[in-house]
Amino acid sequence: MLHNPSSKYRPFAPVNLRDRTWPDAQITHPPIWCSVDLRDGNQALIEPMDVERKIRMFEQLVKIGFKQIEVGFPSASQTEFDFMRKLIEEKRIPDDVTVQVLTQAREHLIHRTFEALEGVPRAIVHLYNATAPVMRRVVLNMSEDEIVELARTHAQMFKDLAARYPQTQWQFEYSPEMYSDTELEFSTRVIDAVTEVWEASPEKKCIINLPTTVEHSSPNIFADMVEWTCRNIQRRDGVVVSVHPHNDRGTGTATAELALMAGADRLEGCLFGNGERTGNLDIVNVALNMYIQGVNPGLDFSDIDAIRATVEYCNQLPVHPRHPYVGDLVYTSFSGSHQDAIKKAFAARKEGEIWDMPYLPIDPKDLGRSYEAVIRVNSQSGKGGIAYLLEAEYGVQLPRRLQIEFSQVVQQEMDALGTEFAAADLWKVFEKEYGLFSDHGLQYAMQQEKGLVKLQGHLQWQGQDVQLQGSGNGAIDAFVQALSDALGCTLRVQDYSEHAIGQGANAQAMAYVELRVNNEQTIYGVGTDANIVSASMHAILSGLQRSKVKAVVAA
Amino acid sequence: MLHNPSSKYRPFAPVNLRDRTWPDAQITHPPIWCSVDLRDGNQALIEPMDVERKIRMFEQLVKIGFKQIEVGFPSASQTEFDFMRKLIEEKRIPDDVTVQVLTQAREHLIHRTFEALEGVPRAIVHLYNATAPVMRRVVLNMSEDEIVELARTHAQMFKDLAARYPQTQWQFEYSPEMYSDTELEFSTRVIDAVTEVWEASPEKKCIINLPTTVEHSSPNIFADMVEWTCRNIQRRDGVVVSVHPHNDRGTGTATAELALMAGADRLEGCLFGNGERTGNLDIVNVALNMYIQGVNPGLDFSDIDAIRATVEYCNQLPVHPRHPYVGDLVYTSFSGSHQDAIKKAFAARKEGEIWDMPYLPIDPKDLGRSYEAVIRVNSQSGKGGIAYLLEAEYGVQLPRRLQIEFSQVVQQEMDALGTEFAAADLWKVFEKEYGLFSDHGLQYAMQQEKGLVKLQGHLQWQGQDVQLQGSGNGAIDAFVQALSDALGCTLRVQDYSEHAIGQGANAQAMAYVELRVNNEQTIYGVGTDANIVSASMHAILSGLQRSKVKAVVAA
Repeated sequence: MLHNPSSKYRPFAPVNLRDRTWPDAQITHPPIWCSVDLRDGNQALIEPMDVERKIRMFEQLVKIGFKQIEVGFPSASQTEFDFMRKLIEEKRIPDDVTVQVLTQAREHLIHRTFEALEGVPRAIVHLYNATAPVMRRVVLNMSEDEIVELARTHAQMFKDLAARYPQTQWQFEYSPEMYSDTELEFSTRVIDAVTEVWEASPEKKCIINLPTTVEHSSPNIFADMVEWTCRNIQRRDGVVVSVHPHNDRGTGTATAELALMAGADRLEGCLFGNGERTGNLDIVNVALNMYIQGVNPGLDFSDIDAIRATVEYCNQLPVHPRHPYVGDLVYTSFSGSHQDAIKKAFAARKEGEIWDMPYLPIDPKDLGRSYEAVIRVNSQSGKGGIAYLLEAEYGVQLPRRLQIEFSQVVQQEMDALGTEFAAADLWKVFEKEYGLFSDHGLQYAMQQEKGLVKLQGHLQWQGQDVQLQGSGNGAIDAFVQALSDALGCTLRVQDYSEHAIGQGANAQAMAYVELRVNNEQTIYGVGTDANIVSASMHAILSGLQRSKVKAVVAA
Repeated sequence: MLHNPSSKYRPFAPVNLRDRTWPDAQITHPPIWCSVDLRDGNQALIEPMDVERKIRMFEQLVKIGFKQIEVGFPSASQTEFDFMRKLIEEKRIPDDVTVQVLTQAREHLIHRTFEALEGVPRAIVHLYNATAPVMRRVVLNMSEDEIVELARTHAQMFKDLAARYPQTQWQFEYSPEMYSDTELEFSTRVIDAVTEVWEASPEKKCIINLPTTVEHSSPNIFADMVEWTCRNIQRRDGVVVSVHPHNDRGTGTATAELALMAGADRLEGCLFGNGERTGNLDIVNVALNMYIQGVNPGLDFSDIDAIRATVEYCNQLPVHPRHPYVGDLVYTSFSGSHQDAIKKAFAARKEGEIWDMPYLPIDPKDLGRSYEAVIRVNSQSGKGGIAYLLEAEYGVQLPRRLQIEFSQVVQQEMDALGTEFAAADLWKVFEKEYGLFSDHGLQYAMQQEKGLVKLQGHLQWQGQDVQLQGSGNGAIDAFVQALSDALGCTLRVQDYSEHAIGQGANAQAMAYVELRVNNEQTIYGVGTDANIVSASMHAILSGLQRSKVKAVVAA
């Protein structure tokens, strides 16, 4: 039994702010967005990103439209330092993007940080030190006066070092660490000391970042704190007030929204809420919440599944099937009454009308997704659904998104036939839908040289003989390239899985491939063969065939 | 590119409530909790629960301490009807628990619902109909007056039917569907019509449930709505005001908290936020948020991993590694400065003191978890961590929680030796830690009869010969039973995975088992063998050996 918490835990102290104004505020424009995926997000990964993944994440962030990107903590390790140098020396930072780096308030780290930034056209340098009582007492063993002096001295160091590199356009940022757990009067005192040193002014603003390093209180209390701070700090008009929420209480998104209403100008967070422990603020969530309220967030999530694929690849962590706006299940309805209401509302809706759809707060098309009405075969009789029956009887393990796709195929068949389906009926539909035993006469040879796979082969496509020639870092990669060239389409493999059915000499590989075709359609293909490589290729051909893309043999 | 949303989406209309009081309220006691896992949660699953899973979920909910449990929609299908009958006829409902069932406002469904409940000692019957403008217009094609009449007629039907079954203690609940999207004046009108029919009074309260069927607005606006409704409905003192948040905007938890501050008495939600689309309110999250504010929620999550295992089994959906309070990574710090601060704060803390730990809002021990400081071997050099090296060099695929566990072992070794570890060093530590090649002289024979596996065997344990005899629904189950009996301990397998290394005749199975020993320790074991069954058994022995439990040969 959980023991009574009242002797162990303390209620959060409310802020005395009876004349608060934020509950009447409305969000009518987006904040300045700053991604911290490459810093706070990266440091919380079981496997931190290598350089290749970092570059991929950076390019994804740029593509989404972030103009401020915290790229690392260059004084913390050689890897981080080298990555910063690489971005600068290879001129990978677009003209409208400012990179940001973090440093503790320690002299040698600050020197090293400015060294890492040499030659960068624009940069935000982000200073932090602990201010919360528990940190002062237990970790730093310093008085309030000493903490203020610590902040002031290192802020001055920023100013001096920046003057040595006048070719760079500098902006400074300061975070009182665990702002959310620091006495408001004291964090204000530290902030004022820093903005005084930095001579913050409307012409030369600095950023004051207020982190809920750990989320302690309900979002309304944090909003009270932000409104209090905005009212009480000096040089408010020379300050960009930034917030940096975490999600320990599961209320990071609300904390960000209420903080914007309370006066914050800027948000720091990560894609889909990666980050320490329960994660940083999920920037995608906040941005799309604005979007469905008619406010253009200025960030582009129109192909949200591709962004998810990149994030899952870089972070090596999954996005949950119920994650707002992007999870596998969030545009799916299982309930007959929901399906019915949506169907009627789609029928009644005229193009150009305001979006007012029951059970769908956003048009999935806006994010490159589609609405999925899913039936549950035999759920009434309690014998389980499609995936369950196919796995139990045929040993196939369908990926979740394929399950959803296939259930729509089954639904159409059932609507046409009006009967209940047994496992054998489902298998027939599955075989037919995914062309499971058509190999398109595929023949190929491959050779591997210094990490490059070269493939040559031929197959039959719509009655014509197609020659294949391609290369890539693996068999699938080479095949996809050869096929795209031969048929004049663009193909990308978004998801891939494979498993064996049976054992020993009779074992067959089943391969499932989620294919993005011509950047407009996302579709699964399934292939099977005794050879795992051939099974994958058949799966790609299956998906392409199903997509009915105008893939024709190039002249 | 996302198109400009301002012509397609509508900002949510604010509530004119300048004299709102909820921003000054504090949560000082828990609400009435109602789990809807078996209804709203279940209907949103790819594979709805079968009877065995439903029973397991029901028993888990009872064990946690829920006193109100919505168990289904008995008029919707025979399965749901039968489950309700089973609970009643097998007397599975404890005396202090009230079951709840949902029905639409349709005559034959209501009759069938009361039929399903015949003989139940206590029940909440939950009526709903659509009230939101889009539903009135598009789905029902009814005027406001007609909707009020619909609600009134069916509320009367409840009263009449309940009178026919006087042996049951009835409570009624009503939900205006999509309350969150209905004009406040109109939902109040419908609610008043229903409470009038039901003669709601302080002596005989009914429940009025306000669902954010779809989450449309920020939580502060919902709180304004709830405060407005609480002030404006008639018979407020005869009404339990309940809220039922969903999570489309990622703010379900905040919505629940602010609604409680605004006057709600009761919350409906699911464990870890399962439910339609982005899920229902996560009740565990809200309850533990109260807990760390010193408020006893009255629900018991002191073995949260066991609860998670049950929920994942029943729902066949994972809990995300960053899920508040329960995810694999939420008590882990990767950052050296976080680890340092936590270490110092643990050292400074005296037993019985208020919990004030940097980066740890809750004592993980309160939930049966532990704090984990995780190093990242070689992360500085960008070559990846422990799991990466072991997989790349030795082909083992460590489950995530085992990775965390093992990294602590490695950290101790590194602290002792002070060197960097190559893959071969890591492998040696891994082999030794998990006793990878000690088979304890295990020999066994098994036979299967009508779904029951019987096992006989013997092994060496701490120098003694141990006879094994057990049975179960599978090999592991039978082995665990035999071992528990022989050694006088309780064992539960919480997680299990297995994969092959190598191919053909030389293939070896690697098995990983997360073991709960004597309900007090959770620990991994690893085993390997050419035979997958033996590998699993070795893994169980490995975990038991590592747990250093006082397992002795029974006399």
